[in-house]
Amino acid sequence: MQLEQKFREILKKIKAYNYVFSIVGWDSNTEAPRESFKRRSEMMGILSKELFAIETAKETIEVVNELYDNLSELDDHLQREVKKAKKSLDKIINIPEEEYVEFMQLIQMSQLVWEDAKKNNDYNSYKENLKQIIDFTKKFALYYAPDQDPYNTLLDDFEEGMSTKEYDEFFTVLKKDLVPFVKKVLKVAKNDYKKFINDSYDPKKQEEFCDYLIDVMKFNRNRGLMKKSVHPFTWNTSPEDVRFTTRYLENYVFSSIFAAIHELGHATYEQQISTEFDDTLLNGGTSMGIHESQSRFYENTVGRSEAFWETHFDKFKELFPEQSVGLTANDMYRAVNFVEASLIRVEADELTYPLHIMLRYDIERKIMAGEVSVDELPELWNDLMEQYLGIRPENDSDGVLQDVHWSGGMIGYFPTYALGSAYSAQIYYTMIKDLDLDEIIKNNELEKVNEWLKERIHKFGSSKTPKEILEDVTGEEFNAKYYVQFLMEKYSKLYL
Amino acid sequence: MQLEQKFREILKKIKAYNYVFSIVGWDSNTEAPRESFKRRSEMMGILSKELFAIETAKETIEVVNELYDNLSELDDHLQREVKKAKKSLDKIINIPEEEYVEFMQLIQMSQLVWEDAKKNNDYNSYKENLKQIIDFTKKFALYYAPDQDPYNTLLDDFEEGMSTKEYDEFFTVLKKDLVPFVKKVLKVAKNDYKKFINDSYDPKKQEEFCDYLIDVMKFNRNRGLMKKSVHPFTWNTSPEDVRFTTRYLENYVFSSIFAAIHELGHATYEQQISTEFDDTLLNGGTSMGIHESQSRFYENTVGRSEAFWETHFDKFKELFPEQSVGLTANDMYRAVNFVEASLIRVEADELTYPLHIMLRYDIERKIMAGEVSVDELPELWNDLMEQYLGIRPENDSDGVLQDVHWSGGMIGYFPTYALGSAYSAQIYYTMIKDLDLDEIIKNNELEKVNEWLKERIHKFGSSKTPKEILEDVTGEEFNAKYYVQFLMEKYSKLYL
Repeated sequence: MQLEQKFREILKKIKAYNYVFSIVGWDSNTEAPRESFKRRSEMMGILSKELFAIETAKETIEVVNELYDNLSELDDHLQREVKKAKKSLDKIINIPEEEYVEFMQLIQMSQLVWEDAKKNNDYNSYKENLKQIIDFTKKFALYYAPDQDPYNTLLDDFEEGMSTKEYDEFFTVLKKDLVPFVKKVLKVAKNDYKKFINDSYDPKKQEEFCDYLIDVMKFNRNRGLMKKSVHPFTWNTSPEDVRFTTRYLENYVFSSIFAAIHELGHATYEQQISTEFDDTLLNGGTSMGIHESQSRFYENTVGRSEAFWETHFDKFKELFPEQSVGLTANDMYRAVNFVEASLIRVEADELTYPLHIMLRYDIERKIMAGEVSVDELPELWNDLMEQYLGIRPENDSDGVLQDVHWSGGMIGYFPTYALGSAYSAQIYYTMIKDLDLDEIIKNNELEKVNEWLKERIHKFGSSKTPKEILEDVTGEEFNAKYYVQFLMEKYSKLYL
Repeated sequence: MQLEQKFREILKKIKAYNYVFSIVGWDSNTEAPRESFKRRSEMMGILSKELFAIETAKETIEVVNELYDNLSELDDHLQREVKKAKKSLDKIINIPEEEYVEFMQLIQMSQLVWEDAKKNNDYNSYKENLKQIIDFTKKFALYYAPDQDPYNTLLDDFEEGMSTKEYDEFFTVLKKDLVPFVKKVLKVAKNDYKKFINDSYDPKKQEEFCDYLIDVMKFNRNRGLMKKSVHPFTWNTSPEDVRFTTRYLENYVFSSIFAAIHELGHATYEQQISTEFDDTLLNGGTSMGIHESQSRFYENTVGRSEAFWETHFDKFKELFPEQSVGLTANDMYRAVNFVEASLIRVEADELTYPLHIMLRYDIERKIMAGEVSVDELPELWNDLMEQYLGIRPENDSDGVLQDVHWSGGMIGYFPTYALGSAYSAQIYYTMIKDLDLDEIIKNNELEKVNEWLKERIHKFGSSKTPKEILEDVTGEEFNAKYYVQFLMEKYSKLYL
């Protein structure tokens, strides 16, 4: 079919540009020298324009629309690709070009404004930028779907098929069942391992331990690598090139370890996707939420399990004999699962983490409904922190200014973090019907877990929707109860 | 001027593509995982075609030709740019496309064939590829300049303004004055430092020493970085992003040190070029020869000087106390200047190095003149080795198969290596009229040398020809006598 041929050609060209953008991004985030940024953004600007011209070319629009008009004649995979292409296209071409350019400039500038505001604890210097970002985001969502709640458009952008309906249900369950439980745990939990956790750990030794974890996870070194960066992330251009980073904080060894395991979860997902999707729009993980379910599964369900530290604490002690003197694997298990009410999301423990997300969802919902002004945000944030976690930020840097997302135009992203953890729990309860996870971890055979996930989730790439993935794996719709159950079982045992 | 405007726009686009090709190349040579190569070459193939289309577009050809037809009306810099553009264009468009594609495929395949042949000491498996490369190279040179000795076209490709006339003179001087001197030194030189040189040196410590050298050289870390790779090289996209690599061989510490200093020479050149040339064809070092003069100057004239090790041997001893026990700075100076007749060019010392190049020049000259067949090459190589250095390779892997250049289609490249050293000597004798180099090295003030070179050579980028650079700096034409003088002074003092 000649039309599909044309579609493939255009797609391949687009992929080639995105490929080099990825490589340049990786370079810039992991090693490029400081003063290289100016030239880089100039050069990338030129190629972005080239790419934009291809993506919005008359031929592209015609090919996509014509395929879309004949959807029913296409095979399943091609149908899904064309729907995705049509969606992306409609998102771009419905926005007047000058507004798009203005928004891009706003985003770029706002990053710097936000950084300064956070550093100087000066929300006022940033709120006008935030207001403009909110206005643009809402406007663009309405260009795409004039009859739909713009927040739903954004939620679907980050997690296909999700809307306030599903998220409301999800967070209602958490509010009802999890919040009281968390309060109970917080009342009795105290951290006996502060000295151990915040002791001094040589970054080189930390790196050695993280390198060891690569093999524990059975990550394929011929198709990837680990590096360091300020903010840990996973990066990929194809299943044959998947890289991730971690960071080494001298006085917080858990940061490097759990960032590494978390990113290894994302990376394993990407490495195990079938290469048959490389030249299609079905490559890569299917959604933020499913991706996060994999990283959280490895980080928390595997990496923060008792079995994991029974198996790997010896290696840890070998590298850090002084810091861990007198401690057992069980101490390590307890230390990596300490719970406390804290202000910063990215530093929150597994149990309190979803409450940080709940708060953000509440706020985003009000923002998009126009029920709260940017002036009122700091107060609202602090009130909700008190309500959910019983603590109140003393300044906005530890409150409404803490996250980068909104300044980058990403409204609707946060909920996928909690959703990922919840997916992960639901998948976990299915997995343990097939696998003796504890035994596998103790035998250092995580390749069996990788294989289970590959066959049910990873290999499909984006050829299935998140909803299809979850239902095909677990045999039922998304259900938040598993998440609550998982957390209650684990933390009751640890603390109650 | 509208035509220049168009020229600039095309150029900027071409630069953006080359920018990403550079980044991808850097990534691929320093860290990309093994199995990433297939996807990379596919993606690069697509973008190469896009670039080729721009470079050979009707508009490009018209703009360049029209500017070239009105050369005299342009300012000096633009004249030079247009001449360069015209030359590149004529080199491409005179070759029939299918021959160009065939040649590219041949080159790519020949790399692998050469690697295997070298590994298996099997010249016969490679000679047919070499023959085809020679034939293509000759043919392409004749397409470009039908009335010119094709070897001269190639020599000029790698060093603007050079031909067999100049090189013949150069190598005649070496043959007459240097070869007998080398033979005299080789007769008396013996290496008293073998154990020290080939002792075991922890690569991490070697890296620490090379990192120390970055600061000794006053290299700007905000505009560059050091990494490791199998073959050391320097890489740059603009003066604000200049990177280099070295390699760490456990049993040959000099490899990392002198590769680092050598590449720092190249890198300093690139860092010090005026950024005003970034968007022109006058960016980057002006030629292979001038580039090599800078790297060799730092490597040999600075890095292998007595003053250098008087200043930095303490740091070396601090890192390698056991290996250097009982040794003085003078021992180090002697060790880094040991001389011996050896088979492999890249491992040759400063004194015997030009003889390796002479041999390659002799052979290339005969190849291009059709005076020697590929069948006769191994024998010719070995005979010349015996004639110049008094030793004979026992196998072709240590003889005609040792270098990668010919298999990559680079015939005419080798002479620039010796030329660079000779340039370096001529520049050196000018420099010491202005600067007390020994004193500067002892005071760890290499920024003064950098500055001297910047003002006279570096900042001009490619806006001057190599010939202009050399004559403006030294006040005279290229003269090989300085090179011979430098080597005879240094090595007489050391050995005679």
